[in-house]
Amino acid sequence: MSIIWTSRYALRAKGMRSSAIRELLKITQRPEVISFAGGLPASDVFPIERFKEACRKVLEQNAGLALQYGETEGYKPLREMIARHISRYGIRAQAENVLITTGSQQALDLVGKLLINPGDPILVEAPTYLGALQAFSAYGAEYFSVPCDEDGLRTDLLEARLRSGPKFMYVLPNFQNPGGTTLSLERRRTLVLLAEKYGIPIVEDDPYGQLRYEGEHLPPLVVLDRENVPRDDGYALGNVIYLSTFSKTLAPGLRLGWIVAPPEVIAKLVQLKQGADLHTSTFTQMVAYDVARDNFLDQHVKRLRNVYRERRDVMLQALEQYFPAEVTWTRPKGGLFLWVTLPDGMNANELFQEALKQNVAFVSGDSFFAPDAQEYEPSRHLRLNFSHARPEEIRDGIRRLSVAVKSQLEQLRAVQRS
Amino acid sequence: MSIIWTSRYALRAKGMRSSAIRELLKITQRPEVISFAGGLPASDVFPIERFKEACRKVLEQNAGLALQYGETEGYKPLREMIARHISRYGIRAQAENVLITTGSQQALDLVGKLLINPGDPILVEAPTYLGALQAFSAYGAEYFSVPCDEDGLRTDLLEARLRSGPKFMYVLPNFQNPGGTTLSLERRRTLVLLAEKYGIPIVEDDPYGQLRYEGEHLPPLVVLDRENVPRDDGYALGNVIYLSTFSKTLAPGLRLGWIVAPPEVIAKLVQLKQGADLHTSTFTQMVAYDVARDNFLDQHVKRLRNVYRERRDVMLQALEQYFPAEVTWTRPKGGLFLWVTLPDGMNANELFQEALKQNVAFVSGDSFFAPDAQEYEPSRHLRLNFSHARPEEIRDGIRRLSVAVKSQLEQLRAVQRS
Repeated sequence: MSIIWTSRYALRAKGMRSSAIRELLKITQRPEVISFAGGLPASDVFPIERFKEACRKVLEQNAGLALQYGETEGYKPLREMIARHISRYGIRAQAENVLITTGSQQALDLVGKLLINPGDPILVEAPTYLGALQAFSAYGAEYFSVPCDEDGLRTDLLEARLRSGPKFMYVLPNFQNPGGTTLSLERRRTLVLLAEKYGIPIVEDDPYGQLRYEGEHLPPLVVLDRENVPRDDGYALGNVIYLSTFSKTLAPGLRLGWIVAPPEVIAKLVQLKQGADLHTSTFTQMVAYDVARDNFLDQHVKRLRNVYRERRDVMLQALEQYFPAEVTWTRPKGGLFLWVTLPDGMNANELFQEALKQNVAFVSGDSFFAPDAQEYEPSRHLRLNFSHARPEEIRDGIRRLSVAVKSQLEQLRAVQRS
Repeated sequence: MSIIWTSRYALRAKGMRSSAIRELLKITQRPEVISFAGGLPASDVFPIERFKEACRKVLEQNAGLALQYGETEGYKPLREMIARHISRYGIRAQAENVLITTGSQQALDLVGKLLINPGDPILVEAPTYLGALQAFSAYGAEYFSVPCDEDGLRTDLLEARLRSGPKFMYVLPNFQNPGGTTLSLERRRTLVLLAEKYGIPIVEDDPYGQLRYEGEHLPPLVVLDRENVPRDDGYALGNVIYLSTFSKTLAPGLRLGWIVAPPEVIAKLVQLKQGADLHTSTFTQMVAYDVARDNFLDQHVKRLRNVYRERRDVMLQALEQYFPAEVTWTRPKGGLFLWVTLPDGMNANELFQEALKQNVAFVSGDSFFAPDAQEYEPSRHLRLNFSHARPEEIRDGIRRLSVAVKSQLEQLRAVQRS
């Protein structure tokens, strides 16, 4: 009896959701396609010389450590650097509050593995990051979706949901993926107070916080939580598990993210990470540390802000110039994405087919909503990435996309008239 | 109401098992301790110059690819190289049969995530690799343990267990961790036939297969399965999911392992890996490819065999010279470990405390048995690693350990006399 992998070994979905984006990336990698899909940072600004120098140094001075098994928690100097960095914003974090993960996707996976039992409801934004839905759904999560507006999560709608007892809240306060929106300071304060009131932890995902192109930096929830709720428990943090990454500021190919959390949470996550991949590459951790040190990362991030600010502006200008008035979009103050809303009756998936004919790609909104969020009309939205394509491509790509939009809009009008 | 992470958010074990080894590593890293714990390859044989050259080349010629997001499946040239390598042994594998993982620990985690529902019994060897128990237990696995002897898994005891319907069999046929034993050719044939007869898949973990110091290479189960059961399904493999890694042949700090499986299994594992960490570091994959290419890896493995063969021989000679006759041990033909059995009544955990006084460390057998395997007296065993310490340290360490063994043995005899 041969094994029929697809039947007896049902290779069951276990709530898996195929990542439309990852599959899409392959199609849209054709050279003639201008892609606003994916969440790729610009390849042309990777600090290559600095990487070369760091690799050389690490292998010359410390190869025995860099190529060997390492501690599950991560490379200590890197954890200390991350703790110092978050301490700038007013939180007393130490290395023991930091776990290095294999990209922040692994942070999401470990959080899910730790906290989610099948059927547990997780409060998420509508729309939200599809990678989080993928990670959490693998553990059988259900969802309570709460909508966002230009100021981020609608905290005025939150309390009713919190009374139903979600296991945790998953939020992206800065330049949200996919919405591009930023949670206002007032709502941040409301959010941490509600978390405290109902005893519901917050998982704060902050991959883009450093990439702000205008306005004032807003304090992360993990900091506000600490301010609002004085605790005398030493270096223990409060109700927030904070996630971030080097993927957008240094290079995603390293697969380096991190979790900042109370030590007792870190200790449990370390156990889970042991079973998941033992530890993250010692070599890439040491190289990233050497690249980032001596304020290089801060300087590099300043450069990135300039590059990405220009690309965002070019995209916004092109949208203004080419797109019909019936279409609206967000104006992100940072990050990599903006979010387009189509007029009632138009469908982003149909638009996608039309757009491919014009050799331009994006991601349809469908991917970014939990199953309970269908009322927010997922396929009336699309996500546009502005960090990867060069300015002239962005301009041309938006022009091409506008051709597809207008064509779809005319068809829609024709149907509505008939 | 502040969140009490340790109560309401029970941070529950979910069957987690703290990795004694990883925690132990920290204690045993004191410079005065000679450690036979851990499974560390020798740091002094890492091909550092080759790594430096590879990093330089990858960053000079291909930084945009190396530092960017990559495909979840892995870097294609590396997958092709791995497929070619396994094809040498008579299996028609292609890149589509290969998924790159973040160390082979992630391979175990993904296999668990795909196949295990809470309560599913997994057939394992007694003893078996504790990292597999950690990975599988996180998904709620139960276990059927089947003992090993000098020829590996006792296949004569297998059929009764297979009738009870384990979800899959997890086996390490070559130089088993921790036992150091190798599954005989005859038993390999029996095993794949029984897998076929009962329709139970085999997860074949082969981190050490290349590290054979004497005797003939034996075909992996994934090859025998294919030979025994002719299939006309193109490149699809059969009942075996095969795992291996660069950790023992190149460098564990890269975190690079792989899974070879039928394409439909790979496709599902790819979806799970997307949620787990998106993909393995593009940079380390490209560096490993560049290091391994042009037959360098084969040459390097030949060198490793010589280094490790000597260390094994030194350890076996020292055991012979210093250890009392009541203690027995395996004589591995390859790999990194041997397995010591203490006389009835002696306890490896007590011995460990005594050994630490002598500044020598090992791992007690406890960690390597599933909960159902207590009849095999886990704490009468210990695992010794012979790859990491240098020959003169091995000799001295075994001498020190023999002092602890004799001291414990005398105490035992005194108790037995009284």
